[in-house]
Amino acid sequence: SKYEYVKEFETDDRMLRNVYVLVRIDGKGFHKFSQTHDFAKPNDVRGINLMNHAARCVMHELDDILLAFGESDEYSFLFRKSTDLYQRREAKIVSTVVSLFTSAYVYYWNDYFTDLKRPLYPPVFDGRAVLYPSEVEVKDYFAWRQADTHINNLFNTSFWALVEEGGLTPKAAEARLCGTDSKDKNEMLFTEFSTNYSKLPAMYRKGSVLLREQIPKDADKDAIIPTLPETLPGSKSAKVIPAPGLQSGPDPISEPASEAPSGQSTPISLDSPIVVQETVMQENSSNSSSEGKKRSIDANEAEQQDVEEGPAAKKEAPAFKRMKKGVVIDHIDIIGEKFWTGRGAYILAPEKKKKLRS
Amino acid sequence: SKYEYVKEFETDDRMLRNVYVLVRIDGKGFHKFSQTHDFAKPNDVRGINLMNHAARCVMHELDDILLAFGESDEYSFLFRKSTDLYQRREAKIVSTVVSLFTSAYVYYWNDYFTDLKRPLYPPVFDGRAVLYPSEVEVKDYFAWRQADTHINNLFNTSFWALVEEGGLTPKAAEARLCGTDSKDKNEMLFTEFSTNYSKLPAMYRKGSVLLREQIPKDADKDAIIPTLPETLPGSKSAKVIPAPGLQSGPDPISEPASEAPSGQSTPISLDSPIVVQETVMQENSSNSSSEGKKRSIDANEAEQQDVEEGPAAKKEAPAFKRMKKGVVIDHIDIIGEKFWTGRGAYILAPEKKKKLRS
Amino acid sequence: SKYEYVKEFETDDRMLRNVYVLVRIDGKGFHKFSQTHDFAKPNDVRGINLMNHAARCVMHELDDILLAFGESDEYSFLFRKSTDLYQRREAKIVSTVVSLFTSAYVYYWNDYFTDLKRPLYPPVFDGRAVLYPSEVEVKDYFAWRQADTHINNLFNTSFWALVEEGGLTPKAAEARLCGTDSKDKNEMLFTEFSTNYSKLPAMYRKGSVLLREQIPKDADKDAIIPTLPETLPGSKSAKVIPAPGLQSGPDPISEPASEAPSGQSTPISLDSPIVVQETVMQENSSNSSSEGKKRSIDANEAEQQDVEEGPAAKKEAPAFKRMKKGVVIDHIDIIGEKFWTGRGAYILAPEKKKKLRS
Amino acid sequence: SKYEYVKEFETDDRMLRNVYVLVRIDGKGFHKFSQTHDFAKPNDVRGINLMNHAARCVMHELDDILLAFGESDEYSFLFRKSTDLYQRREAKIVSTVVSLFTSAYVYYWNDYFTDLKRPLYPPVFDGRAVLYPSEVEVKDYFAWRQADTHINNLFNTSFWALVEEGGLTPKAAEARLCGTDSKDKNEMLFTEFSTNYSKLPAMYRKGSVLLREQIPKDADKDAIIPTLPETLPGSKSAKVIPAPGLQSGPDPISEPASEAPSGQSTPISLDSPIVVQETVMQENSSNSSSEGKKRSIDANEAEQQDVEEGPAAKKEAPAFKRMKKGVVIDHIDIIGEKFWTGRGAYILAPEKKKKLRS
Ligand SMILES: Nc1nc2c(ncn2[C@H]2C[C@H](O)[C@@H](COP(=O)(O)OP(=O)(O)OP(=O)(O)O)O2)c(=O)[nH]1
Ligand SMILES: Nc1nc2c(ncn2[C@H]2C[C@H](O)[C@@H](COP(=O)(O)OP(=O)(O)OP(=O)(O)O)O2)c(=O)[nH]1
Ligand SMILES: Nc1nc2c(ncn2[C@H]2C[C@H](O)[C@@H](COP(=O)(O)OP(=O)(O)OP(=O)(O)O)O2)c(=O)[nH]1
Ligand SMILES: Nc1nc2c(ncn2[C@H]2C[C@H](O)[C@@H](COP(=O)(O)OP(=O)(O)OP(=O)(O)O)O2)c(=O)[nH]1
Ligand SMILES: O=P(O)(O)OP(=O)(O)OP(=O)(O)O
Ligand SMILES: O=P(O)(O)OP(=O)(O)OP(=O)(O)O
Ligand SMILES: O=P(O)(O)OP(=O)(O)OP(=O)(O)O
Ligand SMILES: O=P(O)(O)OP(=O)(O)OP(=O)(O)O
Ligand SMILES: [Mg+2]
Ligand SMILES: [Mg+2]
Ligand SMILES: [Mg+2]
Ligand SMILES: [Mg+2]
Ligand SMILES: [Mg+2]
Ligand SMILES: [Mg+2]
Ligand SMILES: [Mg+2]
Ligand SMILES: [Mg+2]
Ligand SMILES: [Mg+2]
Ligand SMILES: [Mg+2]
Ligand SMILES: [Mg+2]
Ligand SMILES: [Mg+2]
Repeated sequence: SKYEYVKEFETDDRMLRNVYVLVRIDGKGFHKFSQTHDFAKPNDVRGINLMNHAARCVMHELDDILLAFGESDEYSFLFRKSTDLYQRREAKIVSTVVSLFTSAYVYYWNDYFTDLKRPLYPPVFDGRAVLYPSEVEVKDYFAWRQADTHINNLFNTSFWALVEEGGLTPKAAEARLCGTDSKDKNEMLFTEFSTNYSKLPAMYRKGSVLLREQIPKDADKDAIIPTLPETLPGSKSAKVIPAPGLQSGPDPISEPASEAPSGQSTPISLDSPIVVQETVMQENSSNSSSEGKKRSIDANEAEQQDVEEGPAAKKEAPAFKRMKKGVVIDHIDIIGEKFWTGRGAYILAPEKKKKLRS
Repeated sequence: SKYEYVKEFETDDRMLRNVYVLVRIDGKGFHKFSQTHDFAKPNDVRGINLMNHAARCVMHELDDILLAFGESDEYSFLFRKSTDLYQRREAKIVSTVVSLFTSAYVYYWNDYFTDLKRPLYPPVFDGRAVLYPSEVEVKDYFAWRQADTHINNLFNTSFWALVEEGGLTPKAAEARLCGTDSKDKNEMLFTEFSTNYSKLPAMYRKGSVLLREQIPKDADKDAIIPTLPETLPGSKSAKVIPAPGLQSGPDPISEPASEAPSGQSTPISLDSPIVVQETVMQENSSNSSSEGKKRSIDANEAEQQDVEEGPAAKKEAPAFKRMKKGVVIDHIDIIGEKFWTGRGAYILAPEKKKKLRS
Repeated sequence: SKYEYVKEFETDDRMLRNVYVLVRIDGKGFHKFSQTHDFAKPNDVRGINLMNHAARCVMHELDDILLAFGESDEYSFLFRKSTDLYQRREAKIVSTVVSLFTSAYVYYWNDYFTDLKRPLYPPVFDGRAVLYPSEVEVKDYFAWRQADTHINNLFNTSFWALVEEGGLTPKAAEARLCGTDSKDKNEMLFTEFSTNYSKLPAMYRKGSVLLREQIPKDADKDAIIPTLPETLPGSKSAKVIPAPGLQSGPDPISEPASEAPSGQSTPISLDSPIVVQETVMQENSSNSSSEGKKRSIDANEAEQQDVEEGPAAKKEAPAFKRMKKGVVIDHIDIIGEKFWTGRGAYILAPEKKKKLRS
Repeated sequence: SKYEYVKEFETDDRMLRNVYVLVRIDGKGFHKFSQTHDFAKPNDVRGINLMNHAARCVMHELDDILLAFGESDEYSFLFRKSTDLYQRREAKIVSTVVSLFTSAYVYYWNDYFTDLKRPLYPPVFDGRAVLYPSEVEVKDYFAWRQADTHINNLFNTSFWALVEEGGLTPKAAEARLCGTDSKDKNEMLFTEFSTNYSKLPAMYRKGSVLLREQIPKDADKDAIIPTLPETLPGSKSAKVIPAPGLQSGPDPISEPASEAPSGQSTPISLDSPIVVQETVMQENSSNSSSEGKKRSIDANEAEQQDVEEGPAAKKEAPAFKRMKKGVVIDHIDIIGEKFWTGRGAYILAPEKKKKLRS
């Protein structure tokens, strides 16, 4: 029609090629939203699992996302350098990610907040895209977010211990913590509240990492596998899913230089992230839940497979025949080289030439 | 932390000041989504009302939106020139609108699709911002969208008449319509299917217009007032809410030059848009429903008020004391000057100076 | 070739349509450049005239420039809203303007700095584009630049009077002026240095305005007409070119509300800007100089013609037959409505529809 | 002032960090400009040398430029990834480069076109910035430009041979060349015009490469060293400046895989690019010309120094004490790895960490 000329006012917002595209979404006014919905302080397992579930929906939908990291009311999604999703149009990519995440958050709400059909009002997330040209910045980006998780969670844990167990007013608690460093807070928690901070669930301390790894071939690719609350540490189901070999180091900040090498079996501890991970065992395909089936994977095999992913060795193993790429979740250190040369090696590995030259 | 430098890779995406900001959202893959959920063809009242409901949530949340227009799986939101929402940051504005819309769409799904707790999968919308410097382009933008509504709806109505009533295959229907113009289709519908196209619901033919107009003062500003299916033409409730004086002209394309002047009372017809409008009567404040109360407004008063909005006359009327600005919905022509000098006059009216100079 | 894909990394930088495009260029390190070349302080006539000459080259080359304003080492160029120069590509427009200006500055150097074949090193200008959606901002933009001219020139005139005539050190002069306002400086100049600031050349006090107005038809459009130093106030040639009727109001800052109406003849004064203007008389077509001919125009006629430009009256006059649009220069107030409704009326006048809708 | 708000309409155009910034300038309408000034066809030595001179001015001024390449009426400048020039503001960088280039082109015109004081009209260049994230694209960019040089020059050489020596009309020449490939043209030149294309000056066939390499310490950094016409092949001075060891391979297109290793001395040939290179001997500091002194550098030493530049060996040599980084010019292959691992190795070498994290 004669009005169509208005379409030409749209701008071409295709982002620079061959750089990483990072999309971060963040809950709008979640200070109020978490209060309104009585989120547990400082961490609400239902809320976190729902965030993780929504993030997994995004990764299931958008194949070019290599890695995601979530904490608090935010989630970061890393697209591969060569993505041509929507021709790299910025508004398209940002709006689609934010819409999908929001949609899934409301959609699956009742699976986590089982006593409330839907939230008391529709939750909203904002989103943005950031371009990162090199591997260094990508690593530092995720280190930035996980260091933030650590700092905030240590502060919040201390704060709410002082308020809810210590009986301090919020103001007094804030004053008490003012000027303290990580070590001070760790000690305070241990001495005054008998809390070994490093033994708190890794999900709280380290946030959630979504990776593309091998999962059993019979797992439906599109099926969203909820990570139900009962799989958390302390729950019965948690005990039955040992996952030796998954490294979940100490505090990302005070992390020592030398650690057990990636893929090496280590004794299971309460700190183990496995239960929150979409851990699925091949033998264990019998257990199921109504909406959202839970599967298991032998973590050792995942590790082996992980090595296979790397640029190095290629040894055939019959088990792999029954595996395929899927989205798995874990709560591990992504600060430091260990992750990026281990399970995260595939993320920054060079891409096929074909994609580089349109 | 030492990683914080990565934040500086974020770009400053503040949009040019003092121009209209138009955000359009559009359902992703709604061809499939409407099929999967057995949307009525070519128009599903539940789907349209849900879209309208979600759009109203956006307008309730964001005061700087002056006007919205919806059709099919899309909605357009016009922000005032001087909006300083998020300092006009593009990604913030687009992502917030798209997230809020999506959230509300899923949130209120079950209020419209009452037989399904939630959709079969989470729906997704994309979004974009477009800048329009002048009034001409704003008018032409909405004319573009409404002309699109007309063309698509006339085609779809004809197509599905041929297929569902005429027994043609989709292919045959398409062939039959190939090369026909508006007049041909109108005639075909009248002759072969006894359908007077101009008598079909205005909501289908003209889309939905969300305006900021006077509503009863006791209506809760934040309350989302659902437009329930039973209020549609043909339903019992529709009959009890006559709304004389709301103009809903003939076909926007074949619109004649001379028309009844705005605000003049005209006899009610099936074409009347009132029922879908958030029509609220001052006397009628007793009726309510559990979640989402329905209110009424005397359309004549709304019209009078509308005149008050314009840049011209200012006569006091006691009724206004009990009114306040709210979001109302109607299905009227926005192609042509009549709307923009009548009910839409406030939209392009000059703004206060104060806002212009930061 | 197989390397051509690298071209696709270029971005689409077309600027929003239907808004004014303002390009400002500014000399790089002209503090040093003016010192190195012994520019007169605070104003070097040769330097200013060369700037004006270069600016005129830009306007001669780019028809879509409606108005230009120069002061110190900078020049601003206003493009019409509907310009489609290089499809509004920002880098193309900015780089072309800056290159053309620079080229002309070096090219015509020796015509103004006649004792130096070329500058001691190549001068450089930077450039930028700014978008202005409305008339208000365009007026305020030029008011901003001319107010800047006033403030800087009054300060500099006072400063150098104190230093060069008053014998103060630069530091002492600065201290002396610290905290003074316009009135203080005006008084100091009058009392201590017998200088009536308002009688100083308008070119210094008000900068230079380039307009598109009627010039004699036989003037070659492409010919660059240098404004030679000898045409300045005080020079012999200046005296022979009276230009009654050109208004050059008082101080732009202390400007009184009521003024003589535009176009009204006023007695000539030293303040008269005419001589620096590209004043050309129809009768006076005989005088010429080697490279760059000087022509004259009856200013009264120009004024009449100016009125013709406005949206109002249209009276035929035989003289106009011999006139055509050309670039003229003057040193008038552009702060305040008088300019914009008078000689500048054409600048913000509505454009033809044709251009609006591509 | 109250008008200052208009400055806020300026946009933040800082370019993404940590990617290469490439600025390309190109003469506006140089088809006409070269005709107007009787440029020799297809290559005018004066014009090329003037372009090179202007480009060197740019590199002397802007330290962050690592490499430049020129051909025809265009020049490309590569900035290092970490440049913070003008905080990476795009308009500032592009306009400064284009202005400086233009300024120098006009400024030094008469040094090359000695019979004309200045051009017949001011020449203009446009400019643009392009971002390249990785080394591959940077190499491919320069390969793209040099391949373009080859294709155009071979065509133009053939075309003008047919026209000027063969007596064909331009139309007939074009027809004759239509459908021919590189080999056909080479053969035609050899057979019909006794021209061994590969023996034509490298400057014509390969364009001009500006590098940062060691030059004698006593060469004034800011001094622009013109590459005078008499230093071209065939001239007397050319013969006296042998430059063993400078590789200037065969046709960049038909380049064989194996070549003499970089830095290895090879017998001098007519193909040698040395004379056009800013080749300067240390002993030869006596010869000079009026404006623009010619200096010398032992090419072998430059080569050795070049090796020193690489990430590998570091052997001290007394000669280096008298050397410093300067801008040198050559006409060598930049298509293929040889350049990028040899003399160009410094260009893509990793930068200091310090710069990466602001
Ligand atoms: N109690 C509780 N609060 C949480 C949990 N996760 C997030 N929150 C709250 C803590 C913070 O107040 C808020 C996230 O901080 P933000 O900086 O994103 O603030 P907020 O979303 O309120 O504002 P914004 O719209 O993002 O600027 O969400 C949780 O698991 N439990
Ligand atoms: N049956 C039915 N279909 C509808 C209704 N409203 C929208 N749709 C369908 C018709 C179209 O196939 C689709 C909207 O067209 P679009 O051009 O937006 O296509 P779609 O969303 O599939 O693709 P997209 O992701 O936007 O590119 O939604 C409705 O009320 N009833
Ligand atoms: N003596 C003298 N100086 C002038 C004249 N016109 C301009 N200038 C000088 C005064 C200022 O130092 C300088 C213009 O100020 P700017 O703010 O543009 O500074 P400058 O160009 O040095 O730095 P920039 O590269 O623009 O940031 O040029 C003149 O006619 N006479
Ligand atoms: N005879 C001659 N012509 C040259 C020489 N160097 C460049 N030219 C001419 C050949 C081309 O016509 C022109 C460069 O081609 P362009 O594609 O840049 O065209 P032009 O500058 O005319 O248009 P543009 O404003 O860049 O779009 O300059 C030379 O050394 N000798
Ligand atoms: O939202 P904050 O305060 O955590 O920080 P931010 O997201 O960088 O700020 P903004 O949302 O305004 O971009
Ligand atoms: O989605 P379409 O086909 O209606 O048209 P569009 O929205 O302008 O296309 P896109 O979504 O690709 O911008
Ligand atoms: O150059 P200045 O200081 O007059 O002010 P500006 O031009 O706005 O600053 P910049 O050149 O850095 O944009
Ligand atoms: O100028 P051309 O035709 O060589 O090609 P281009 O420079 O890519 O085109 P444009 O100057 O229009 O960007
Ligand atoms: Mg935020
Ligand atoms: Mg938040
Ligand atoms: Mg947050
Ligand atoms: Mg679309
Ligand atoms: Mg759609
Ligand atoms: Mg659609
Ligand atoms: Mg500046
Ligand atoms: Mg300056
Ligand atoms: Mg300046
Ligand atoms: Mg070009
Ligand atoms: Mg060119
Ligand atoms: Mg060219």
